[in-house]
Amino acid sequence: MTFSIPTSRAQALAYDAADPLAPLRAQFKIPGGMTYLVGHSLGPATHSALAAIRQTAETDWANDIVRGWNSADWINLAKTVGAKIAPLIGAKPHDVVICDSVSVNLFKLAASALPHAKTHEIMIEDDEFPTDQYIAKGLADLAAAKLTKLPAGAAMAALSGGGVLIKSAVNYRTAEIADMASFEDAARRSGALIVWDFSHATGIAPIDVAASGARLGAGCTYKYLNGGPGAPAFIYAREDIAKTLLSPLPGWLGHKTPFTFDADYAPADHAARFVAGTPPILSLSALSGALDVFRGLDMQRHAQKAQVMSSLALSRAAQMGLKTTSPPYPVKRGGHISLLHDNGYPIVQALAAQGIMADFRTPDTIRLGFNPLYISMTETWDVMDVLADILDTRAWDTSEFKMRAEVT
Amino acid sequence: MTFSIPTSRAQALAYDAADPLAPLRAQFKIPGGMTYLVGHSLGPATHSALAAIRQTAETDWANDIVRGWNSADWINLAKTVGAKIAPLIGAKPHDVVICDSVSVNLFKLAASALPHAKTHEIMIEDDEFPTDQYIAKGLADLAAAKLTKLPAGAAMAALSGGGVLIKSAVNYRTAEIADMASFEDAARRSGALIVWDFSHATGIAPIDVAASGARLGAGCTYKYLNGGPGAPAFIYAREDIAKTLLSPLPGWLGHKTPFTFDADYAPADHAARFVAGTPPILSLSALSGALDVFRGLDMQRHAQKAQVMSSLALSRAAQMGLKTTSPPYPVKRGGHISLLHDNGYPIVQALAAQGIMADFRTPDTIRLGFNPLYISMTETWDVMDVLADILDTRAWDTSEFKMRAEVT
Repeated sequence: MTFSIPTSRAQALAYDAADPLAPLRAQFKIPGGMTYLVGHSLGPATHSALAAIRQTAETDWANDIVRGWNSADWINLAKTVGAKIAPLIGAKPHDVVICDSVSVNLFKLAASALPHAKTHEIMIEDDEFPTDQYIAKGLADLAAAKLTKLPAGAAMAALSGGGVLIKSAVNYRTAEIADMASFEDAARRSGALIVWDFSHATGIAPIDVAASGARLGAGCTYKYLNGGPGAPAFIYAREDIAKTLLSPLPGWLGHKTPFTFDADYAPADHAARFVAGTPPILSLSALSGALDVFRGLDMQRHAQKAQVMSSLALSRAAQMGLKTTSPPYPVKRGGHISLLHDNGYPIVQALAAQGIMADFRTPDTIRLGFNPLYISMTETWDVMDVLADILDTRAWDTSEFKMRAEVT
Repeated sequence: MTFSIPTSRAQALAYDAADPLAPLRAQFKIPGGMTYLVGHSLGPATHSALAAIRQTAETDWANDIVRGWNSADWINLAKTVGAKIAPLIGAKPHDVVICDSVSVNLFKLAASALPHAKTHEIMIEDDEFPTDQYIAKGLADLAAAKLTKLPAGAAMAALSGGGVLIKSAVNYRTAEIADMASFEDAARRSGALIVWDFSHATGIAPIDVAASGARLGAGCTYKYLNGGPGAPAFIYAREDIAKTLLSPLPGWLGHKTPFTFDADYAPADHAARFVAGTPPILSLSALSGALDVFRGLDMQRHAQKAQVMSSLALSRAAQMGLKTTSPPYPVKRGGHISLLHDNGYPIVQALAAQGIMADFRTPDTIRLGFNPLYISMTETWDVMDVLADILDTRAWDTSEFKMRAEVT
């Protein structure tokens, strides 16, 4: 994949003028004057998501009440919304289902994978997202499995041991994309199983579970998928392995025939067996509406625009003398970049004072997320102008900044 | 508790005229002409719940996006909404928290209780709600605990063994209220622990965890609490035991300091340690609004009205020759009654054709739920008139009924 990075505002404007994704911005309800670069944390609302939740709350629930399970097909919503996510990761529709949170889903997948791995062991790198590490330990304690905490970068070699590895497809700090195909090759050779965390990957990085051979994963829907705060997560389980797995949380809605109320559990076909209790329908309906913006989207083009934007931002950041932990090679990056500065926190405040929303991770990491659905190349250029100005003027030292920061 | 049961429509009208709960009906948005008797399955919308979700979706999310975590205090919503439920079961505010589904919460509580029980054993009666039985087995398999399936009614005696019992406070079929204090006494004597399922009890039966000595429980919020379809569930954990328990699903939001992103897990104080991943904020906000109707409510008066309504219905059902599995003694009953009839399914359809919503459980159980917040004594009387007419005319045999049933 080759592309050129704009080196002037005029070139950025030209990119936007030719951008087939540019019209999608109108589907988002982002406050005027705001440049929103925190989509890797919580995506903004689309008009379609807001309409879906209005319909579900004020018509389906308020008018039909319990009949909504049939009249609005709530009973199948976990599956129908899962099927909308499937093409974004290269999966078959019935291999993806919506349920619970990422934490709970990683637990279910890793627990059900344990009896099928060569060793009774949970492995995780020590730079993984903290909740993934907590869940790995919680599961290991309950299932009396060995817990192996690996140094960052050691997971590939550790797969030869044959346990269950929990691994992010895109690292939450650096945005580095894992080489999923190589990991899966190594796992298959040893009898290990990998549970992928797609949270920082889905809807932004070019994930293809079919091409990479990924078998199991869970992901967040409120970041790049814009499903709303705390929107329920998804599970991906490839059909050949799904049919062999038994969830440790076999709730009624993962039953093959939920309404027979059998005393014995018979798991549903495909990924749907990982649904546990009743899903939060109001939140799930917002997610369903939010996914409309992805319909027919060219995910390669989408990922490429993100890479051009983040390359532009990294290039200009380097000119400002800022260090980064994000990979230099664009196709190894997800949707955000991480810039390091000792005054990272006040810099994020100074950006906010000018309508630019970014976020900060202790101790020194500024994260800027570039979502191709609603951020333009020109906005990216302009953001870096503002950042340069903040650095030039050492805005965090000035009382003027302090005053402005307080009102944001 | 003594009370008289109306024996005429005039007496029912007199009851309603003097009923201090009667004005609460106006807080609900129930379609005109509908008598809604399925509140034990999914409660109807209140104007307050609908307003809360509009505020959360269209203002807090759409305008503030990620800043909503602070500006709308989403970060504490699991705790603040839990504190609204606490007085309904006699608990302290910090002993109740909102998270996940009932299925997941029963799993977390029972798993974390196991190391503190005298024996490594999960016990459950075989007439418990099916999902509770599935979860008991899923946990026993993962934790290599003994699973003991008890005959209905055998749980009290089995507590002497000293394991972890999962037990409904109100049975989902019969609505029988368990004698929680006696169960807890037996458990304390033997070193057993009880995880209560409050799903069919909360917001309708006079549950008092302080008086009964209950230590752990989970419950549903979309039945008598009217939180909306699939609204997230709650956990009750009394502070003295909560501080000793470690959730097997230690997600980031149950951490003592979630935003330090520590690699090691330190559980939050009180019940909040049982929060796992990010809760579904849109659904949670609807629940928050729905709970407004309970503010300042006299729960004893509320439960008593339910008992009078269900006594009236049972008395008239007996006159029609209908059998019931619900307890005859009013204070032993939750909010619904179960009537048995071989043509139960078409009878429920015939009721629906006249605007009366009831539900059916195979093979022969008609359930009628009487929620004192929005059902009047006169409606209860009139429903039984309609039921008598359906039985008298054997409506399920007539083509006229079949036609009407198809359009509902």
